[in-house]
Amino acid sequence: MSFPPLLEDLIRSLKVLPGVGAKSAQRMAFSLLEGDRLGGQKLAKTLAKAVDGIQHCTSCRNYTQSELCDICANPRRELNGEICVVATPSDVAAIEQTGHFQGRYFVLMGLLSPLDGIGPDELGLDRLANLMATTEVKELILATNPTVEGEATAHYIAEIAQQHNVRVSRIAQGVPVGGELEMVDGKTLGHAFSGRKTL
Amino acid sequence: MSFPPLLEDLIRSLKVLPGVGAKSAQRMAFSLLEGDRLGGQKLAKTLAKAVDGIQHCTSCRNYTQSELCDICANPRRELNGEICVVATPSDVAAIEQTGHFQGRYFVLMGLLSPLDGIGPDELGLDRLANLMATTEVKELILATNPTVEGEATAHYIAEIAQQHNVRVSRIAQGVPVGGELEMVDGKTLGHAFSGRKTL
Repeated sequence: MSFPPLLEDLIRSLKVLPGVGAKSAQRMAFSLLEGDRLGGQKLAKTLAKAVDGIQHCTSCRNYTQSELCDICANPRRELNGEICVVATPSDVAAIEQTGHFQGRYFVLMGLLSPLDGIGPDELGLDRLANLMATTEVKELILATNPTVEGEATAHYIAEIAQQHNVRVSRIAQGVPVGGELEMVDGKTLGHAFSGRKTL
Repeated sequence: MSFPPLLEDLIRSLKVLPGVGAKSAQRMAFSLLEGDRLGGQKLAKTLAKAVDGIQHCTSCRNYTQSELCDICANPRRELNGEICVVATPSDVAAIEQTGHFQGRYFVLMGLLSPLDGIGPDELGLDRLANLMATTEVKELILATNPTVEGEATAHYIAEIAQQHNVRVSRIAQGVPVGGELEMVDGKTLGHAFSGRKTL
């Protein structure tokens, strides 16, 4: 390569982004230098600020700029008494958009995965247990992904909740709204049958 | 969405990168905050430095940190008398890696594309003409891509060179080394035949 050192540095640094290899990093660097230097400057500034300023909420572990996130700081949310356990901040955003849930969240920031070294400590489960011991929790709603890791994590947390005598529930699994039965896989269809409701 | 403002800012800023939409930007932001804050900080610093410090070589338009790039600043390269015209800095890097070319480059930073508003001025062709008028150029080698835009640009530059009585050549088109004939498209095969050499 015969790029100037600063450009080499930039290309190397861009490779920390997920899914960005040598070729994409080069394309990104050129595009930042060629098309949009202002956008590049703005990205540099917001990135520096975000890396410094964004931390985890001390109560629910979601991203926040202050000690408590907006949801945990809202007393109406605490009064509701329900805690929804999710894997990532994007799950919180997705659930908030539905407007169906008025309680607080607990963000695991991952799912149990012993092979990757992610155990109960990494998911902050001691903090969740502490929350159940010290505040009034009416119900713990487990909204982890319906995958192997998500199910294992949900089971593990359900046991902790039962030790604290807290009611636990799991979000319903079945056919997605608007989907066609013939396109739905067998396992989902099985869940839809076993979870059927009398009308 | 219910992300803190700094995180929203970061996600919005990441979208200036080519090929990065809302979902990828979110994934990148999470990965920077979760896995690699040090890498994120480094990226912010190098990006700010690069956007400020990298400019175009006043002679060949390639990226450089000083007024002249390393290649243009090398007197041996100028003595050679050949100028290779390419579309992008990556083309320079690719040709340099072969070690086949010992002259200077001229980087167009694009190809003629009237519909996108890219004309001779945007490619710095006045500067190239000036170079041919003021320095001794033995040969202009046109190494733009073998695409419609690349061919059109090569033709246009060839005419300018002929006005300055400079010898012009175009890199050879034919079957790629190591390729199989049955996999090669008809146009390339046609070029390979019309450009055949007597042994």
